[in-house]
Amino acid sequence: MTFRPAADIGMTLAEVDTPCLVLDLDAFERNLDRLDASLAGRTVKVRPHAKSHKCPHIALRQMARGAVGVCCQKVSEAEAMVAGGVPDVLIANEVVGAAKLERLAVLARQARIRVCADNAANVRDLDAAARAAGVVLDVLVEVNVGANRCGVEPGEPVAALARAIAACGGLRFAGLQAYHGSAQHLRSVAERRDAIASAVAKVQSSKVALAAAGLPCDYVPGAGTGTYLYEAASGIYTELQPGSYIFMDADYARNDWTESGLPRFEHSLFVWTTVMSIQGSGQVVVDAGLKASSVDSGMPRVADIAGAEYVKASDEHGVIRLPAGVALALGEKLRLIPGHCDPTVNLYDWYVGVRDGRVAALWPITARGAVL
Amino acid sequence: MTFRPAADIGMTLAEVDTPCLVLDLDAFERNLDRLDASLAGRTVKVRPHAKSHKCPHIALRQMARGAVGVCCQKVSEAEAMVAGGVPDVLIANEVVGAAKLERLAVLARQARIRVCADNAANVRDLDAAARAAGVVLDVLVEVNVGANRCGVEPGEPVAALARAIAACGGLRFAGLQAYHGSAQHLRSVAERRDAIASAVAKVQSSKVALAAAGLPCDYVPGAGTGTYLYEAASGIYTELQPGSYIFMDADYARNDWTESGLPRFEHSLFVWTTVMSIQGSGQVVVDAGLKASSVDSGMPRVADIAGAEYVKASDEHGVIRLPAGVALALGEKLRLIPGHCDPTVNLYDWYVGVRDGRVAALWPITARGAVL
Repeated sequence: MTFRPAADIGMTLAEVDTPCLVLDLDAFERNLDRLDASLAGRTVKVRPHAKSHKCPHIALRQMARGAVGVCCQKVSEAEAMVAGGVPDVLIANEVVGAAKLERLAVLARQARIRVCADNAANVRDLDAAARAAGVVLDVLVEVNVGANRCGVEPGEPVAALARAIAACGGLRFAGLQAYHGSAQHLRSVAERRDAIASAVAKVQSSKVALAAAGLPCDYVPGAGTGTYLYEAASGIYTELQPGSYIFMDADYARNDWTESGLPRFEHSLFVWTTVMSIQGSGQVVVDAGLKASSVDSGMPRVADIAGAEYVKASDEHGVIRLPAGVALALGEKLRLIPGHCDPTVNLYDWYVGVRDGRVAALWPITARGAVL
Repeated sequence: MTFRPAADIGMTLAEVDTPCLVLDLDAFERNLDRLDASLAGRTVKVRPHAKSHKCPHIALRQMARGAVGVCCQKVSEAEAMVAGGVPDVLIANEVVGAAKLERLAVLARQARIRVCADNAANVRDLDAAARAAGVVLDVLVEVNVGANRCGVEPGEPVAALARAIAACGGLRFAGLQAYHGSAQHLRSVAERRDAIASAVAKVQSSKVALAAAGLPCDYVPGAGTGTYLYEAASGIYTELQPGSYIFMDADYARNDWTESGLPRFEHSLFVWTTVMSIQGSGQVVVDAGLKASSVDSGMPRVADIAGAEYVKASDEHGVIRLPAGVALALGEKLRLIPGHCDPTVNLYDWYVGVRDGRVAALWPITARGAVL
């Protein structure tokens, strides 16, 4: 509901009011470069996840560098991407309920849309919606490759659901969605590598079952920022779905990234905040609390001030403990690194893109709040 | 950015798509009644906090029952309230920075606006902004009554800042803001009562210092849903600022409310969600995750199904563990009680007001995202 952009083009960063979501455009572009460089020589495609940025401006920049489209989690998110000019969206999630299925099928008239399923009743509903809209929908089977959230079990259950899809006049069996969500934040390289090895085995057994059912499968998307190099190296994944790599939040930064070949994505997304109260020495209150930075994956981190710690968030306030010898003045502004980028982005209506210390871009987050 | 209402008037609740924010209008109105009844016979005024609901429709309903105006935390929130027809707003918070101060002073030409301060440099900035806008601003001194967040220490420091305010041609010293934020969720009645007794003593010592400085103070707002009866009974607080009582979230419900006289507010705010995946027996996945219900104060609770537990939230998914013998079908919809109402409301653009099982109101949350 905040239609007014959070800043004006050309302002210095110091002039930008707070709290707002600042994107360091150079760092963001270096992260795009790092992803590309890390995949040089591979045939695997990239389809970044738009649930992280919720912004067609960013999606189109990813596609300009070779991404084949984007992923979304929600139909309304996909609608925002298509409205913003993205021609190819994979909804890497199940879509349940008549209202959403109707919107999904109508959207498939305007853009290339694929969707996932993990349930035979849902497949029947997808078929009915596709027929009603006069489209043929591409449906992937989501495989539970280890996260134990959505998805059918690997092997024969995958083949059974694929057969059900293929038997529907309104649907086409389009491949296997094989994202291992709970592997992304395993802290050690070895844990993440092992988790993806296990996921790959589950995809393989599923492909064997599909082949036996006469349903060859040449489209296997999956992977996130924490693991994508392992999926890329597997030879079995055909598309990668990282989202957070463009921003690199505080929680992802707690992963061990030291393995050779792993790109060192840098923080590009910041919550810009002002010191609004000073309580004696050693502690200040800033104007960014729970409504400015999501704390589900830990508190935001204070950038630029070694030893400063954001220790407590309430709705509109954040308490920062300062190291000995550091003082901040009332009105001073500082950058916070969000704990978790996705739900933090979802609090804002605008990115304030900054380059060389000035506002150089204002990108609306048109899929903010797109939960349907 | 989601301009389309989340439902249509007249729909049955079962038809309403998910996730969305459902307000049980009868329960909401009963909560309004309970607050009034609990204060019957008292002269203290009520100025509910709009940071909880962010919706002028709700503010005007509170005022129709006698509330004298609303509180806000942010200038942009106050702008949304004034734009929605609220004539009297107390910004129960400090406002720091030239851009916000200019907006604040301009807003004071359109409505009765009061603001808080806890810093002499900020008082000078407030004065300059008021003079530039040609207004005289009412400024309260915020007293640190125990939360150790913002506010000056009680007693002489309060009087010193009040003198600084009174000495400014663009400002009027208008009273003491004395909200004890960290007392609200102390679980036992005794702890909350003791915390407010301590806050009252700090207000008293501050009033003594003010009187000695020739600055009598007859306006002392403060209090929240967890403690307001104690401030009301103090004889020293003149206005109460509860916000969450209209919704009663899961975290507030963990307080002990058994003391005589404490109203039993009921849950009126729900996240309406759909079962989107079924993993074997005993566990389902719903379509409401971190972007649909804030988890900073604990997971949402499952309403209507005894023993069901929402155990895990990811960005777009929630995992619910079901008690033995309970099964839910794919597509079934259920109500979640948010862990914390304020940041949950801030995720949505609309309230879907339901009465007698049908959508009876669609209220835009016009201050959603109003963090400036």
